[in-house]
Amino acid sequence: MFVLHSQLAKDCTVIGDLSLCRVLLMNDARFPWLILVPQREEITEVFELSALDQRLLWEEVSAVAAALAGHTRAHKMNIATLGNVVPQLHVHVIARRHQDAAWPAPVWGAGAPEPYDEAALTTVVEALTDLLVTQGLQRA
Amino acid sequence: MFVLHSQLAKDCTVIGDLSLCRVLLMNDARFPWLILVPQREEITEVFELSALDQRLLWEEVSAVAAALAGHTRAHKMNIATLGNVVPQLHVHVIARRHQDAAWPAPVWGAGAPEPYDEAALTTVVEALTDLLVTQGLQRA
Repeated sequence: MFVLHSQLAKDCTVIGDLSLCRVLLMNDARFPWLILVPQREEITEVFELSALDQRLLWEEVSAVAAALAGHTRAHKMNIATLGNVVPQLHVHVIARRHQDAAWPAPVWGAGAPEPYDEAALTTVVEALTDLLVTQGLQRA
Repeated sequence: MFVLHSQLAKDCTVIGDLSLCRVLLMNDARFPWLILVPQREEITEVFELSALDQRLLWEEVSAVAAALAGHTRAHKMNIATLGNVVPQLHVHVIARRHQDAAWPAPVWGAGAPEPYDEAALTTVVEALTDLLVTQGLQRA
């Protein structure tokens, strides 16, 4: 049975489930930062997924990246699967802007996260849920 | 016409061409670090590629990552497309080990690159070319 890694559960808020991936919002208000986690057990590398799941994963990643890019008017999207700390396969989809707190460096290790306050978190989660539903990625 | 970005040409050595991507070796002996560049013009985001090219890109990335993981006995593969500095779409495929110079941090911004010496570069390029040919990714 798929269980979300405890570190991801601690750092993130769940937005919803796509066909393959659970979509999380990283609780760092400095960056619009989603994480897609394939709901499969014991997978640490992309190439351990079945061919069909790999295709689904990247289709979901591309679609979410395109939607988030439009929604945030990002200057660049960053897409990455690292997993050096949290082994459960997960893909970062991060909207970057020229004025953001880390540009042009990657976001990892760039200063301390700034958690959303409660009201902002609710607003962002609702907006992103709407976005994924509108794009046909997630059921309403 | 596809032209490799000058910064990638400067930092890397060409290994060869797959169906879609040119495969480069980053000239940093600290990490087995390949870069796949779709041979398409004026593309900066994955979702700007056609659906077919996107599928090809990720199939090539996954296959190269699996091959490099086996070849290097990596503990973890890092796969990322950032493009904050070099806008031409390119995907990093990096074999990470628990003892490497940056572990568990990402490789970007972690100290200074250590270029291969000429003999080592020749050896590594030959080994990686053999690997891609053996895996059926690249023509001999």
